[in-house]
Amino acid sequence: MYKKILVAVDDSELGEQVFQTALDLAQHYQARMMLIHVLSPTHESYPDPIFTTPLASGVYVGLHEEVMRAYAEQWENFEQKGLDMLRNLTQIATEKGVPTEFTQALGDAGRAICDLAKDWESDLIVLGRRGLKGLSEFFLGSVSNYVLHNAHCCVLTVQRRRD
Amino acid sequence: MYKKILVAVDDSELGEQVFQTALDLAQHYQARMMLIHVLSPTHESYPDPIFTTPLASGVYVGLHEEVMRAYAEQWENFEQKGLDMLRNLTQIATEKGVPTEFTQALGDAGRAICDLAKDWESDLIVLGRRGLKGLSEFFLGSVSNYVLHNAHCCVLTVQRRRD
Repeated sequence: MYKKILVAVDDSELGEQVFQTALDLAQHYQARMMLIHVLSPTHESYPDPIFTTPLASGVYVGLHEEVMRAYAEQWENFEQKGLDMLRNLTQIATEKGVPTEFTQALGDAGRAICDLAKDWESDLIVLGRRGLKGLSEFFLGSVSNYVLHNAHCCVLTVQRRRD
Repeated sequence: MYKKILVAVDDSELGEQVFQTALDLAQHYQARMMLIHVLSPTHESYPDPIFTTPLASGVYVGLHEEVMRAYAEQWENFEQKGLDMLRNLTQIATEKGVPTEFTQALGDAGRAICDLAKDWESDLIVLGRRGLKGLSEFFLGSVSNYVLHNAHCCVLTVQRRRD
């Protein structure tokens, strides 16, 4: 029934459940998978941007460059970790006979997922639900909430397993 | 993986897709199903309540009783139509080897679905998404929206097929 399943993964325990759920469905429906990992500013490992002001004198240029280099390294690690995870999951899925591609995006996760779902013409999106409560939900919204309201296709939200 | 699937059905084309999706998953996971049909005031076939004022004189009592009787009949038809659909779907599922029960509820659909999901300890809810847009979504909310935010378990929202 489902032929193209878009799967939003991350390196959390919930992300692992999302992947396993999607993989099982892809095998059942003989579907293709597209894994997406979003480098999102709301992720706890996202390197904080450095707001530096160019100095009038050149005294601290050395320090400035060092800070920039450290930030670039942090960012590269963050990006690389995501890519390693994507490659690893793609290999697992391929070995199970599920044709799988992956992509990494930067920015708002909900929007990135819905945009790709439309471009790639997926018929199912599988993603996790963190389940923010009360005011956090009201102010921050949530990725699953955005996706439910904006996806052009079916959406399976996977709840963290409590056992 | 999923062992108890709660399925929100109605007599629409989308309701039929929801049922077929859930039935297929239940067969795959060898799960049990619980079908729920909610007699909801927001449903277009819901009989409008009659706001009658008791009359001081007895002149129109005959008419009043007639109106009440007509309303009771409308209501009975509405309820019966839902029950017939539930029995029919239960039979289809049972013939496919999926142990299936059904229930009919009255009131707010989102709340009825989440309450039953919790009581029955379902691990997946399957329901349709009407996809209200803009102000309608803002003011009326939607059943799928309520369920996403309040369900204790995974939720699969089925989008109307466009082919």
